[in-house]
Amino acid sequence: MLRNKYPSFRTVLAGPEIVRVAGAHHALSGVLAQEAGFQAVWSSSFEVSAARCLPDASLLSMTEYLTAAANIQKALGIPVVADCDTGYGDNLNVAHMVHEFEGMGITAVCIEDKLFPKMNSFVGDGQALLSVDAFASKIETAKNAQSSADFFVIARTEALIGGLDVDTALERCRVYADAGADAVLIHSKARTKDQVVAFLEGWDGRVPVVIVPTTYPAWHIDEMRHAGVSVVIYANQGLRASVSSLRGTYRSIYQAGDSTGVEESIASVGEIFDLQRLAEWQKLSA
Amino acid sequence: MLRNKYPSFRTVLAGPEIVRVAGAHHALSGVLAQEAGFQAVWSSSFEVSAARCLPDASLLSMTEYLTAAANIQKALGIPVVADCDTGYGDNLNVAHMVHEFEGMGITAVCIEDKLFPKMNSFVGDGQALLSVDAFASKIETAKNAQSSADFFVIARTEALIGGLDVDTALERCRVYADAGADAVLIHSKARTKDQVVAFLEGWDGRVPVVIVPTTYPAWHIDEMRHAGVSVVIYANQGLRASVSSLRGTYRSIYQAGDSTGVEESIASVGEIFDLQRLAEWQKLSA
Amino acid sequence: MLRNKYPSFRTVLAGPEIVRVAGAHHALSGVLAQEAGFQAVWSSSFEVSAARCLPDASLLSMTEYLTAAANIQKALGIPVVADCDTGYGDNLNVAHMVHEFEGMGITAVCIEDKLFPKMNSFVGDGQALLSVDAFASKIETAKNAQSSADFFVIARTEALIGGLDVDTALERCRVYADAGADAVLIHSKARTKDQVVAFLEGWDGRVPVVIVPTTYPAWHIDEMRHAGVSVVIYANQGLRASVSSLRGTYRSIYQAGDSTGVEESIASVGEIFDLQRLAEWQKLSA
Amino acid sequence: MLRNKYPSFRTVLAGPEIVRVAGAHHALSGVLAQEAGFQAVWSSSFEVSAARCLPDASLLSMTEYLTAAANIQKALGIPVVADCDTGYGDNLNVAHMVHEFEGMGITAVCIEDKLFPKMNSFVGDGQALLSVDAFASKIETAKNAQSSADFFVIARTEALIGGLDVDTALERCRVYADAGADAVLIHSKARTKDQVVAFLEGWDGRVPVVIVPTTYPAWHIDEMRHAGVSVVIYANQGLRASVSSLRGTYRSIYQAGDSTGVEESIASVGEIFDLQRLAEWQKLSA
Repeated sequence: MLRNKYPSFRTVLAGPEIVRVAGAHHALSGVLAQEAGFQAVWSSSFEVSAARCLPDASLLSMTEYLTAAANIQKALGIPVVADCDTGYGDNLNVAHMVHEFEGMGITAVCIEDKLFPKMNSFVGDGQALLSVDAFASKIETAKNAQSSADFFVIARTEALIGGLDVDTALERCRVYADAGADAVLIHSKARTKDQVVAFLEGWDGRVPVVIVPTTYPAWHIDEMRHAGVSVVIYANQGLRASVSSLRGTYRSIYQAGDSTGVEESIASVGEIFDLQRLAEWQKLSA
Repeated sequence: MLRNKYPSFRTVLAGPEIVRVAGAHHALSGVLAQEAGFQAVWSSSFEVSAARCLPDASLLSMTEYLTAAANIQKALGIPVVADCDTGYGDNLNVAHMVHEFEGMGITAVCIEDKLFPKMNSFVGDGQALLSVDAFASKIETAKNAQSSADFFVIARTEALIGGLDVDTALERCRVYADAGADAVLIHSKARTKDQVVAFLEGWDGRVPVVIVPTTYPAWHIDEMRHAGVSVVIYANQGLRASVSSLRGTYRSIYQAGDSTGVEESIASVGEIFDLQRLAEWQKLSA
Repeated sequence: MLRNKYPSFRTVLAGPEIVRVAGAHHALSGVLAQEAGFQAVWSSSFEVSAARCLPDASLLSMTEYLTAAANIQKALGIPVVADCDTGYGDNLNVAHMVHEFEGMGITAVCIEDKLFPKMNSFVGDGQALLSVDAFASKIETAKNAQSSADFFVIARTEALIGGLDVDTALERCRVYADAGADAVLIHSKARTKDQVVAFLEGWDGRVPVVIVPTTYPAWHIDEMRHAGVSVVIYANQGLRASVSSLRGTYRSIYQAGDSTGVEESIASVGEIFDLQRLAEWQKLSA
Repeated sequence: MLRNKYPSFRTVLAGPEIVRVAGAHHALSGVLAQEAGFQAVWSSSFEVSAARCLPDASLLSMTEYLTAAANIQKALGIPVVADCDTGYGDNLNVAHMVHEFEGMGITAVCIEDKLFPKMNSFVGDGQALLSVDAFASKIETAKNAQSSADFFVIARTEALIGGLDVDTALERCRVYADAGADAVLIHSKARTKDQVVAFLEGWDGRVPVVIVPTTYPAWHIDEMRHAGVSVVIYANQGLRASVSSLRGTYRSIYQAGDSTGVEESIASVGEIFDLQRLAEWQKLSA
């Protein structure tokens, strides 16, 4: 079967394990994440905008992010969680976003409580947030806009990113959960896991908690599970690895004057054919 | 200046040096090729389709290949050479293709003398070719469709790929050049450079020759120049490097249970910001 | 509910009535067809390419036709039947097409037995056809590619358009039905219904018959039903009406020097708001 | 020549005449406006969103509006003026917008001083405006982002729409002109031309004035010219005519049970072929 079937993110989350999610910027990276064992793929705004060499600042349009997410999903047997930034505007935009993402087969989206246009969370020293009521209204709007009961909406608070404290983050997340969020994402750019641990200790568990350990990479999956994390997103390591590798490969070829030196370490053309599922496609020839 | 200016491929080719071109599948890989010193970027059908995990078999539409090529070009200060396969159909499609690619700022395209829908040249044991007259008519159509004198059309013969001999390849290329092709591309999947060298020895130089040394990677740039090559395309090494790197990185994170192990070898978030030209963009904030 | 729910075309066809379908080139025309009572909408290649002022000759890409069809479907509570020309290439393209159209929510497609690239059926004096076996293989490929049992594939023969006789058309359609086609479309550009009537008299009813009475407009729906037609597509009258109306309106404004003269006969801004469902959308405001 | 050449909007405006512009939602309507004599075409957000049956409320993405504008421009020998709403966000979005629209061949854009996401100007009773300084900064950003000296930026004030007075509108427009706007657009939804006339009487002529007489249709072109108008946009009459015509045509066919009744009044298939420039395209056949 060349067209993939995949469970919804809600179904995956219902399993007994902590759900491990990897960031991707194209179908190929998504497939390699799936191959490694991840249970879902994060179509990361940071990765997708970086692939275009544009800042992660609401410059790409919803159409472009949607196309990226849908193209990743089509190649996978596991669900995509679409990073939808602020929801691309106000309540009307959020409803339209849900119609469009769900209509393209996406089973989970994540929206955050920053203002549109957003700036990437790792930039600068504090960012303005939407009021808690306005964002709760967005969550409610998203949930009302979905067609199937299965569709999953993650509410991401940028309270810690915006310089607010853990109590404020907890309060925001409680309101978002009560507005209908299926999970909350607590984002931190601290160099340790302490903020996130404090959040988890204060969280009453009304919905699952998602984390993104970009700046505290040493936290082990077993410890996360123990601390109450339900979903962990390794959001951008793939893209960053790809940059190192592309940079080295192009330099090597250019400086050596031939490509012999890289042949050993790069995938063969045949491996690419396998990732393209060429043999299966060829069976369709008349 | 955030919007890049770039010379046309014709201008680059007019320089004294052999032109080195690297394959890319997104703006990010194109920028890294440029950074390494390459003078142009090949928006490769093989890479772009592989990024979607679909075979390089005319499955993606012209719209998708055009969008990919244009998005790469926008990020660069060097020209893109767009791999346009067979021209997406017959003469009418070729004219439309030239209108669309030139209209999006692409300065050079390459079309090949296989039948639509094509199959990747490294697949199988010989492929059917379009008649030499029909392909010459495509070349003529392409040249008549361009708006600016600068636009550049490369005629690629798949004669050797299709199992024909060097003399046939030479004869085809002479006809294509006389039909208006600005350069010819001689493609070979032999494990040595011998076929291509024989072609170059037989070529009368009426237009420049382009090669793609995927299967004969050891041929050095200085030797190519000496043999009469004008343009060399390292067509897919970037994507292949990226696959190895993504595969290893995802596996490492998944198996280790944290991402500490990859942190050392992958680009930092700050390096990604630089590739996104974030600092320049931020200066625009009110 | 702002996101429309709609039955599949198969469900609509299962009803007791002859199914009347109207051609559309954008969501707005589709909605007006639905409002008039039609049971389905034909996303016509002729209309969609004409809206771009390009010939109906496989110049627009599958991406563009798919986007058009999907955008129409999103606005409707009735199903779209997507005019997919030749399936955009060979068997592989047909499988990819089914994945993509079904993935975007389209429940019925139609492919025809002409060669890619196609030319509109009303152009010229006879067109080359694909061999019956090759097209039967396309139909089989399409049926194997669908994910849901509900998806509906119409096999359109251009035998009469290509100058062949009714017996040949019947023979082709029997083979297509046996290959899995859910319905057959018999296209004729004769100035009377006679050819089509002869086809219907010879048809054994193994699957339903679809017709497109562009050149024999006087045939009444009750007579069609009586003659054994299951589906009738009024494929392009909407676009043609729109051209007359736009032409007259622009001329009138330009020649009069003001727009008073057209105000009486054109829809009000408020009527457009209603078609945009503005009041419903505004209820989402925070 | 199948690919159209067209003058920039700046060139057209430099002529001796008041420039008459007609709204369009697809290439076909643009071509019919050109045929009627209009000197430019307005790719209207209201029309383009209405064609999708979605409110004119920043729901469609920049990608969708850009694609619409570019597809119109490709079919024309006269320039498109792209209705770019608020510029799709803040300064960064405006710069990106200019890169993208200019990169696709658009020579003039219009942005307005409402907040993102916007609501159509004819909706409701007063709308919030961006501060004059913030919008002046957008204009300056747009002008700095353009690549060619020819590119043209219209600053549209919604001061009157937002319930402010003519003096405020004049003050805003002076600031916008000083920030680099190439023209100002004064929008009014009053039922008479009086507000606009008052604006023109108070305007010092530092840049040309554009108007959109949707609600005061009786004002004659000669009077506008006399009053100091440089550009007049008949922004939505085409779409509104098209709705009336489509509605009537579909109803007639459905209710009559055949399409005979509409044949007389609708364009022939041959007229559509002419608009598709079929005969010219066919000359390209091998």
